[in-house]
Amino acid sequence: MSLTTVKEALAIILNNEQNFGTENIDFEKSLGRVLKEDIIADRDFPPFDRVSMDGIAINIDTFKKGQTNFKIEGIQAAGDAQKTLQNTANCLEAMTGAVLPKNTNAVVQYELLKIENGIATLETDVIKDFQNIHKKGLDRKQGAILIKKNTKISAAEIGVFATVGKTTVKVAKQPKVMIISTGNELVKVSEKPADFQIRRSNVFTLVAHLKKLNINAQTAHIEDDKKMLSQKIETFLNEYDVLLFSGAVSKGKLDFIPEILNNLGVKKLFHRVKQRPGKPFWFGKKVYAERSRNGNTTVFAFPGNPVSTYVSCLKYFYPWYYKSVGLNFENKNKAILSEDFYFKPDLTYFLQVTLKNVDGKLMATPVSGKGSGDLANLVDADAFLELPDDKSNFTKGEVFPIITYR
Amino acid sequence: MSLTTVKEALAIILNNEQNFGTENIDFEKSLGRVLKEDIIADRDFPPFDRVSMDGIAINIDTFKKGQTNFKIEGIQAAGDAQKTLQNTANCLEAMTGAVLPKNTNAVVQYELLKIENGIATLETDVIKDFQNIHKKGLDRKQGAILIKKNTKISAAEIGVFATVGKTTVKVAKQPKVMIISTGNELVKVSEKPADFQIRRSNVFTLVAHLKKLNINAQTAHIEDDKKMLSQKIETFLNEYDVLLFSGAVSKGKLDFIPEILNNLGVKKLFHRVKQRPGKPFWFGKKVYAERSRNGNTTVFAFPGNPVSTYVSCLKYFYPWYYKSVGLNFENKNKAILSEDFYFKPDLTYFLQVTLKNVDGKLMATPVSGKGSGDLANLVDADAFLELPDDKSNFTKGEVFPIITYR
Repeated sequence: MSLTTVKEALAIILNNEQNFGTENIDFEKSLGRVLKEDIIADRDFPPFDRVSMDGIAINIDTFKKGQTNFKIEGIQAAGDAQKTLQNTANCLEAMTGAVLPKNTNAVVQYELLKIENGIATLETDVIKDFQNIHKKGLDRKQGAILIKKNTKISAAEIGVFATVGKTTVKVAKQPKVMIISTGNELVKVSEKPADFQIRRSNVFTLVAHLKKLNINAQTAHIEDDKKMLSQKIETFLNEYDVLLFSGAVSKGKLDFIPEILNNLGVKKLFHRVKQRPGKPFWFGKKVYAERSRNGNTTVFAFPGNPVSTYVSCLKYFYPWYYKSVGLNFENKNKAILSEDFYFKPDLTYFLQVTLKNVDGKLMATPVSGKGSGDLANLVDADAFLELPDDKSNFTKGEVFPIITYR
Repeated sequence: MSLTTVKEALAIILNNEQNFGTENIDFEKSLGRVLKEDIIADRDFPPFDRVSMDGIAINIDTFKKGQTNFKIEGIQAAGDAQKTLQNTANCLEAMTGAVLPKNTNAVVQYELLKIENGIATLETDVIKDFQNIHKKGLDRKQGAILIKKNTKISAAEIGVFATVGKTTVKVAKQPKVMIISTGNELVKVSEKPADFQIRRSNVFTLVAHLKKLNINAQTAHIEDDKKMLSQKIETFLNEYDVLLFSGAVSKGKLDFIPEILNNLGVKKLFHRVKQRPGKPFWFGKKVYAERSRNGNTTVFAFPGNPVSTYVSCLKYFYPWYYKSVGLNFENKNKAILSEDFYFKPDLTYFLQVTLKNVDGKLMATPVSGKGSGDLANLVDADAFLELPDDKSNFTKGEVFPIITYR
């Protein structure tokens, strides 16, 4: 059976992006979401000539005529309506964040003053026009686009939402995701497994991976029974935007998933990828013409080995999600191999590595594991270095794509 | 007034780490938290000789004697109790994840077989002992430490918790944090500001910064009124582990915070740091001997300018938090300046930059902003490059510490 290359597989996946729609949410809850509108400056920033140091506001003409003592008329505090310097030979104390008082055009900071008996005396010979004044509109003009649509929201964007009064923001809706494990050898985490059983773990690592994307996924476990699998999967296909499977896609007698998906009208887009771990990966989609929300349910059926599922979600689901919500994300991150490495099979190899930033260079050091079943090994690593399938000798100092998970 | 250097300030802060205690939580909710117990293998991994490819399990002695056809006795599926190959001249089909059947010691994958009329015929001349069998205990032995105390929990750790049946895990408690804004010029996000007012934004960027650490902070706004400030801050000191202020720490007439904190028994550990932005930063702590939880409330009083507050939280609060919960985190990340830059003042400068990974090298490109009030500029950047105070000319290719926020 011919294998799809990693590059082809990713291209097919990205060609099958999905639109989840948009929703308006409280700006305080938008961290990590993807903005779906431009954010416009509702006024100039700063919105007024803004005092940027604590000190006195004067009319600089008076200084230019040689005056160095200024009687203090009062205080212009932040949050006060604009005051007026009544006599331009005097001054007003002015606080950071305050409006510049009328009839003044420079602020002299306290550090350069002596104040006694209500008189401020300059201890400097140099005062510049509009010194310590952040001019109205200097940062941004009213109507300017402050944040562009399709930006991932960080703390900086949240600050801007607050500043312009955007109490609710339009963001990409998150997909409804169902994560399904299969395999009769699996028992609940709270159970004590028999000698021939193990506990479920893949659904929980997948849930955690998706939580990092702010997706709250549902989970289910289905026994290796064709009829039950078929019934439940049909229901899930109807109710969810995405199904993530873990297991039952290989060549085993009970690996029913590809057949069942086919019978339920899910179109296979590829099965089996030229990679280790994760070769039996199956990907497809079902088009529901009648659904208004969108036409598709996308199915990522990962192999059941813990490391296979783990890395495949990062390598394939993550970019598919990013593209679907409008980020047009492409992972261009690379790292430098810190020691020689040899991998013979004609497969792309996702090598577990620790990452270290050495003087601005990302150095990747292999962490030897025991194969795709060795979940505990991931604890000792930080990332996967993606070694291409067209060679076997990977040399210290060579640069390869990196997929991080911490 | 003498300024504390950035290095000294960070050292003082890290010397005043705080213990928030521990708690036991559901393992599914532990992503991003810090583990406070070792996680031990409750059994060998794999817990049994595990079939790692779908195919037939045989007794290799039969093969060594020249036999190439094997009658199929039955199937050993994953989740079945261990079966026994009754006649060593025969085979059992065996599925990935299954226990290796008794009397067998090699698995031949389907790819190397032809099966007809219940007889499997080998299409290979080479079979190795224990081929396609993941031996019991190969990955980890029962009793081995799989995850060490003081590990930050990622998807990998969650998978291991599930595998060993840790339904609840002991983690570092999060600090109770109150974020307080002051400044009479500030109005609510939902209000339309008068000409001389602006909306609050710093508390929301701080909340977002803390949310990335999985801390759910509370917020409050207090008017610039000495009595009210004093009363409310006293209450907050009693109720919270940490207070984060934004504003009122400079030289203005209404910058009451340092004085009030002093009056309330909060010991100043430094005030004013040799940095831009954020020079007026004040840091201190109050020791409550009578409190059993811990002795301290730690106070970070950041300057009110948006960029000052923003970067100071990342530079100082983040490492303090990491050390407090046991991560002993030190930011060793660095980036390479991609163009010459000049900054004259004798201050550490937190330069806003975009970051790009170019062949494994992190390149930092300055984003020119309009100073510490220009919040919108942060939207165009990814990080702060920390330029030391002992020089003014920073040259393309030089390497400096980097603080990222996306």
